[in-house]
Amino acid sequence: MPEAPTRDPANWHQNLRVVLVGARNSLNIGAAARAMLNFGFTDLRCVRPYELSFRSARSAAGAGSVLAEAKVCADLSEALGEAELVVGCSGLEARKQRHVQRALPSAATALRTHLADRQAALVFGSEKSGLTNDDLSHCDWVLSIPTNSDCPSMNLGQAVAVCCYEISRRAGPSPSLKTPQGVASVTRERILQTLLGVLETSGFLQAGARPAKTRKLRRFVGRLRLAPEEARMLQAILRQVEWKLGHRDRK
Amino acid sequence: MPEAPTRDPANWHQNLRVVLVGARNSLNIGAAARAMLNFGFTDLRCVRPYELSFRSARSAAGAGSVLAEAKVCADLSEALGEAELVVGCSGLEARKQRHVQRALPSAATALRTHLADRQAALVFGSEKSGLTNDDLSHCDWVLSIPTNSDCPSMNLGQAVAVCCYEISRRAGPSPSLKTPQGVASVTRERILQTLLGVLETSGFLQAGARPAKTRKLRRFVGRLRLAPEEARMLQAILRQVEWKLGHRDRK
Repeated sequence: MPEAPTRDPANWHQNLRVVLVGARNSLNIGAAARAMLNFGFTDLRCVRPYELSFRSARSAAGAGSVLAEAKVCADLSEALGEAELVVGCSGLEARKQRHVQRALPSAATALRTHLADRQAALVFGSEKSGLTNDDLSHCDWVLSIPTNSDCPSMNLGQAVAVCCYEISRRAGPSPSLKTPQGVASVTRERILQTLLGVLETSGFLQAGARPAKTRKLRRFVGRLRLAPEEARMLQAILRQVEWKLGHRDRK
Repeated sequence: MPEAPTRDPANWHQNLRVVLVGARNSLNIGAAARAMLNFGFTDLRCVRPYELSFRSARSAAGAGSVLAEAKVCADLSEALGEAELVVGCSGLEARKQRHVQRALPSAATALRTHLADRQAALVFGSEKSGLTNDDLSHCDWVLSIPTNSDCPSMNLGQAVAVCCYEISRRAGPSPSLKTPQGVASVTRERILQTLLGVLETSGFLQAGARPAKTRKLRRFVGRLRLAPEEARMLQAILRQVEWKLGHRDRK
């Protein structure tokens, strides 16, 4: 099981990946990339971008190195990869998901602290519909930019700019405020998949019920905030149970 | 001489006017208007916008009430009007102007305090060239958004978004931190024009030297931070001198 690589604290900006899910407008993709670079962030990942928009954004003048090196990912799990902390950027409607919700100023403080020596992802939904419930199920908590109730919804490129500004607003993260070490998204997702297999094989989940339970269980695994050795242990337990269940079935 | 009208502190957002000088791109004008509304600001003034861009921005869907009510002004003085405090948004090259320069976080604190009961203007230059030296001569000080030296220049719409976010970031201005009452830009400009007339008529300024000295003298008048009664007195003195000078020439 790979552990999240730590990087030089002086280069803490490198520990943040900005993930755009289903972005539709080439100008917004370009604007997000420029805003990232304005505030020192370089790791952009686009999940299922509108193909034409992405090509158009990439070929635009001044799009710069961020866009040239942006990774295109087939799904959110792939984009999150080694990130230990996953923060969704969403409006207030995310409340119905029962996610912990933090206003940008305090969210940025928490993110900076984490970024001192570990990776995090900041996830933005499409211009049209924002983050889906499925996207949100990958998130540890939700960040909301405090906006005016008369006009709450921000332009995507501007939301990325405001978040990048706030995260890099102070000199740097304070190492004294470290939170306990967690595990990468990719590890959590692997645990989740093993767990789902176990639940199905065990009959806890009926065949076909898997999609509906996946989000709920993903949030559960996320909320556990597993330490690396706990994650290794849990995965080992689940694999063992899975093997045993399969073994019995084959008898 | 009109005094700056004060407004209800609960509506302090109304005391900020955002001024775009020579904006060229309709998308940027629209993005600036939307970002203002996102953070509760409504008073937008456009100085010499590219005519076609402005019409196009205004007719765009979702441009909203801010753009519909935006004022088009022939010059910066007209746009500043009753604003007592004028803050230019500019990169580091403004240093050569010897303006006081404040990074956005502390600039926003000062602006919020002022906006509790008095008007202020936040001035942005064009996408291509930013604020000119002439524009900057109207400004009391310069606000800089701290950006990465590899990519310091922000997109106009994103710069407006980040500034509006930061200014409205805290609950509201603290009335205990009030700065002494100043005078409106329009009053300062009137004093400046009277002064220039006096300097020319007096022979201090040679014919044709006026444009070059105007900026320097405008900064000087601004730095005086005149109280209303001082402004009245100074203008009265200058008018008297002007009259006297003209009277003598005619003898």
